[in-house]
Amino acid sequence: MPASDFSAQEYADRIGRTRVAMEQRGLDVLLITDPSNMAWITGYDGWSFYVPQMVILPVKGSPLWWGRTQDKAGAAQTTWLDTSDLLDWPEEHVQHPDHHPVDSLVTVLQDRGWTSSLGVEMDNYYYSAASHRILERAFGVLTDATGLVNWQRAVKSNAEVDMMRKAGRLTAHMHEVLRGAFREGLPKNQLVAEVQAAGIAGLPGLAGDYPAIVPIAPSGAEASASHITWNDRPLTVGEATYFEISGCYRRYHCPASRSLFLGNPSDDIRRAETAVLQAIDDALSAARPGATCEEVAACVYDSFARAGYVKANRTGYPIGLSYPPDWGERTMSLRPGDTTELQENMTFHLMPGLWTPDWGMAITESFVVTAAGGVPLADIPRELVVKPA
Amino acid sequence: MPASDFSAQEYADRIGRTRVAMEQRGLDVLLITDPSNMAWITGYDGWSFYVPQMVILPVKGSPLWWGRTQDKAGAAQTTWLDTSDLLDWPEEHVQHPDHHPVDSLVTVLQDRGWTSSLGVEMDNYYYSAASHRILERAFGVLTDATGLVNWQRAVKSNAEVDMMRKAGRLTAHMHEVLRGAFREGLPKNQLVAEVQAAGIAGLPGLAGDYPAIVPIAPSGAEASASHITWNDRPLTVGEATYFEISGCYRRYHCPASRSLFLGNPSDDIRRAETAVLQAIDDALSAARPGATCEEVAACVYDSFARAGYVKANRTGYPIGLSYPPDWGERTMSLRPGDTTELQENMTFHLMPGLWTPDWGMAITESFVVTAAGGVPLADIPRELVVKPA
Repeated sequence: MPASDFSAQEYADRIGRTRVAMEQRGLDVLLITDPSNMAWITGYDGWSFYVPQMVILPVKGSPLWWGRTQDKAGAAQTTWLDTSDLLDWPEEHVQHPDHHPVDSLVTVLQDRGWTSSLGVEMDNYYYSAASHRILERAFGVLTDATGLVNWQRAVKSNAEVDMMRKAGRLTAHMHEVLRGAFREGLPKNQLVAEVQAAGIAGLPGLAGDYPAIVPIAPSGAEASASHITWNDRPLTVGEATYFEISGCYRRYHCPASRSLFLGNPSDDIRRAETAVLQAIDDALSAARPGATCEEVAACVYDSFARAGYVKANRTGYPIGLSYPPDWGERTMSLRPGDTTELQENMTFHLMPGLWTPDWGMAITESFVVTAAGGVPLADIPRELVVKPA
Repeated sequence: MPASDFSAQEYADRIGRTRVAMEQRGLDVLLITDPSNMAWITGYDGWSFYVPQMVILPVKGSPLWWGRTQDKAGAAQTTWLDTSDLLDWPEEHVQHPDHHPVDSLVTVLQDRGWTSSLGVEMDNYYYSAASHRILERAFGVLTDATGLVNWQRAVKSNAEVDMMRKAGRLTAHMHEVLRGAFREGLPKNQLVAEVQAAGIAGLPGLAGDYPAIVPIAPSGAEASASHITWNDRPLTVGEATYFEISGCYRRYHCPASRSLFLGNPSDDIRRAETAVLQAIDDALSAARPGATCEEVAACVYDSFARAGYVKANRTGYPIGLSYPPDWGERTMSLRPGDTTELQENMTFHLMPGLWTPDWGMAITESFVVTAAGGVPLADIPRELVVKPA
């Protein structure tokens, strides 16, 4: 995802919005650790988030990239920043028992007089409690700015929605391959290999990137556990398997799940299918600007209740630019109590999944909010895929 | 990776070793957040580490699994724990602005009287600064036990080495596919798709799991950046590409890199190849029980120095059971100053990579320490792979 995927104006807009939010929180400097946020602000891309790295955003002037010496060349290649704004910490501090890279960040901040009104993303995978302790000891209390940038990402630009539609074409392609290959006796890992390869080989002019989550693909009773990946057990008649997968185009995602069944699904599963499909229709109709997250979610819970099912977890979340381990944006949720109002060009993964002790059923859609309601970002037959035994 | 991959005795040994280390640190209870450590202690497996979850290990009694309600079924399926030792936090607290799952962990600990001498993994991806703040407010000062479990994992059991050799067969298979498919004009993403699929489809009786890092595969000048993944640019004559990839068998890894070249490599690259191959020979010979990490590393730096190259970063790290974003164990490093003594059945990724501004060269080996020196865990032709234009 080179920075050149978006215009200079778009990056300026993103930074502008972020700075408004910083001012509202009284922040002079924001330390951005979430790789998705780093990429959204600067274009930085690389599998380097397993060591400390940040984008430092002051209220004025250029953002700075700060990371490991070995990754500076990657920052020069992928970001729009001047090379003079790429700062590195000493290579010998990598995973060292006596040195922590964040010690050198303290100096970077002190040198620039950025010693107060600092915001940090306290609840992020790549900002550790150890990093936080070092900064707190140097600068006193820091402001928790978890989600500050994530919230700015909620309303996508048209260029971003275009990326997500391309990701959606990859997702649809993966589901087509899945549907074609799904057959009795095929070891699950072989099916996963084929589907994942389809997503990365992509389509003409549309190369796939790695999704932020690997295929989740449990079968039968396994599917009562919602985050089991795969094993080598052959696909078996009488079992439902659900596949939660996403194409990824230049770090943008479009997840979609389908359940597949070998043989004749029980009435119970068919009733769940009907409830899930109705839930999707109703939720997409409701997903107009001004509707709240909980109103959209209610469509799902209501459809399930009418069919005699109780869904005890949230039914969707915002999506877009992401890095492992999550393709959600971790801001809003489609669930009771979330009164955030939808705006045009927000994008969600609508997830009306049902998990019982005996099976799991997931037919899901990623959509963009438009004046006419939610419009799916991928074109995938919306049904329980049934293959004869 | 179901818990049943290892004997009850092996899990008891692992816990025993960990408890000795806990006692040395004065810890009554260890809160284990690293998914690799959680799996090593209990067998827990699932892509659920994007929400708070832990294994709680007291000095006496069974460890407890603590996680999201939706993931409890996965814990029942994959761990050896009694279901009464699986504790869950309320589903509605997932990524919620006003509730944090760790609030409920406080209650879990208080209910058991586990309110002091608590250890936490402060420098881990999946233990956030926000989680730490909640625990600190409840219990006062906590002990930083980063790496405590990781260190216990350093010396592998024979059963683990067997897993890693199986991962190595997958790695070798991936490299064979890579070597066969590498040709002028092939878009990189298509090559990556093929190689990744080979690793997951696996070999007869040997199914592949997802590696903790996606293929790192930069070409030409891109390769000066060491953590660039891939794009859709066709492979080009006159460029070196290096592939850092790993097979994964039931969460165990065996990474290995090879550089591939289309056309005639320059003398410079050939000289680097010779230095790298010599470095590997020397380091494997040196890697006997009792040798120190820095002594093994010196073999690499010395070989490079004789060829006129300077390598400014570490040249290897321990490997084994892993989850994203890193397949290293984050304990020892093969570099100057690390005087840890090697022991039989320690396993390392020896990484004598060279990155210049114009190209990168990586030929690497994963090995197990034996009385006779380091023995590679995968059988892959050790050379710069050159394909005619």
